[in-house]
Amino acid sequence: MPPGHQDSKKHQGRIPDMSKRKLETCFSPALFEAEGHANSIVVIIDILRASSAICTAFANGAVSIIPVSEIAEAKEYKSKGYLVAAERDGSVLDFADFGNSPFNFTKDKVCGKTIVYSTTNGTGLINLTLSAFMTVIGSFLNIAALERWLVKQDRDVLLLCAGWKNRFNIEDTVCAGAIADMLLRSNCYTTICDSTLAAIDLWLLASPDLPGYIEKAAQRSRLRNKNLDDCIEFCLTPDFTDKIPVMKNGALVADI
Amino acid sequence: MPPGHQDSKKHQGRIPDMSKRKLETCFSPALFEAEGHANSIVVIIDILRASSAICTAFANGAVSIIPVSEIAEAKEYKSKGYLVAAERDGSVLDFADFGNSPFNFTKDKVCGKTIVYSTTNGTGLINLTLSAFMTVIGSFLNIAALERWLVKQDRDVLLLCAGWKNRFNIEDTVCAGAIADMLLRSNCYTTICDSTLAAIDLWLLASPDLPGYIEKAAQRSRLRNKNLDDCIEFCLTPDFTDKIPVMKNGALVADI
Repeated sequence: MPPGHQDSKKHQGRIPDMSKRKLETCFSPALFEAEGHANSIVVIIDILRASSAICTAFANGAVSIIPVSEIAEAKEYKSKGYLVAAERDGSVLDFADFGNSPFNFTKDKVCGKTIVYSTTNGTGLINLTLSAFMTVIGSFLNIAALERWLVKQDRDVLLLCAGWKNRFNIEDTVCAGAIADMLLRSNCYTTICDSTLAAIDLWLLASPDLPGYIEKAAQRSRLRNKNLDDCIEFCLTPDFTDKIPVMKNGALVADI
Repeated sequence: MPPGHQDSKKHQGRIPDMSKRKLETCFSPALFEAEGHANSIVVIIDILRASSAICTAFANGAVSIIPVSEIAEAKEYKSKGYLVAAERDGSVLDFADFGNSPFNFTKDKVCGKTIVYSTTNGTGLINLTLSAFMTVIGSFLNIAALERWLVKQDRDVLLLCAGWKNRFNIEDTVCAGAIADMLLRSNCYTTICDSTLAAIDLWLLASPDLPGYIEKAAQRSRLRNKNLDDCIEFCLTPDFTDKIPVMKNGALVADI
């Protein structure tokens, strides 16, 4: 018996299984290493509220979403007749049609439309991942469909939490943990990433009462203070849609 | 009754109490914002193994520890007769007296001595915090003394996890959570920091079987693979010493 054999079962979780795809989690854009993901799918998670709003838009029939970083660019699109969703720190910009709440992206407003979208965090984050094989948007709203879709793609996965001003946040981490937990249970992925394992533990702690757990998140208080918290319960709802927003040629489109 | 009054008790944990000192946690040097800590004490946590080794050295009577970043600098000190502890990625450098295991810093070797210390992570991290009010070293080995000492100082506290190559790691986070939990229980601190709250949750999850929980940490496997894991159980031992390593004039000295 080779040395350490008795321990091998206990520790097998930490030995990477080379036959499986790699799963990693990044708690902040500031921790994202742009190189090394040319063969990976990056899942952007910004559940309060950009990634939830984007999933809602596609659920309600939006054709595509053009993410833009600069306010001036969003304004120019508006002058050309586009529907524009634009906010900074939770406040709707004056020229925009609406802001960042999923409740804005109703069927009557977005069905059949292309939306130009500019938020505090989200659009810069998408640009950060341009060298990845593919960038998709994840949230609780599309979580089961996302798991099925990722399993079909046969690629390494990196879960990228938007965080808040480059800081770790609880709500995106818990959602990353929920996705990671599902992916590992599919038996197609392996991980030796501490962030992924910690995110799963936080998810398992949060899952019996997700809204209760999210109460402690700083963003929960920020949205409450601005009276923007009406959509939080909705953002924590699993499986509102089967749509997977995927970046293709500079715009998000729905894959199924 | 003002609007929202019924909810105020439920949410009071997220309203910062301005009469209390602020407690924050940073999961990686890459997330550390050098500005804004001129009045804060930064606690550096690198439990496997630098901060545990440093605490052990002072427990065993070391007079001071000079952290140096560059190998050439460590070599120069060696040529001048200093005791030198130096490693890179767990390997002792050939000119050094010993490496990074706390078990090297025995009474007979370090008592009454000044040690020059250069590790993969630790020394660069200390330099990063130069603009803070004070930098101290934390680990499980000095945790209760650290809590008492911090409470006496009457300063905001930032817990800075060394992580691994700028990534989040489980072991430093759990130790930060343990320290944060003690500080909040002292009733002198308040936090609105998601990282602190998540670290505490991971600590509470880990604490019933800390060595078992740390099994999942990537650094646990790295040290095992290099046969450097003999000291891990020791590094997880609470309250081996009352000494608080504090940076003063370019060197760590023991405060009590």
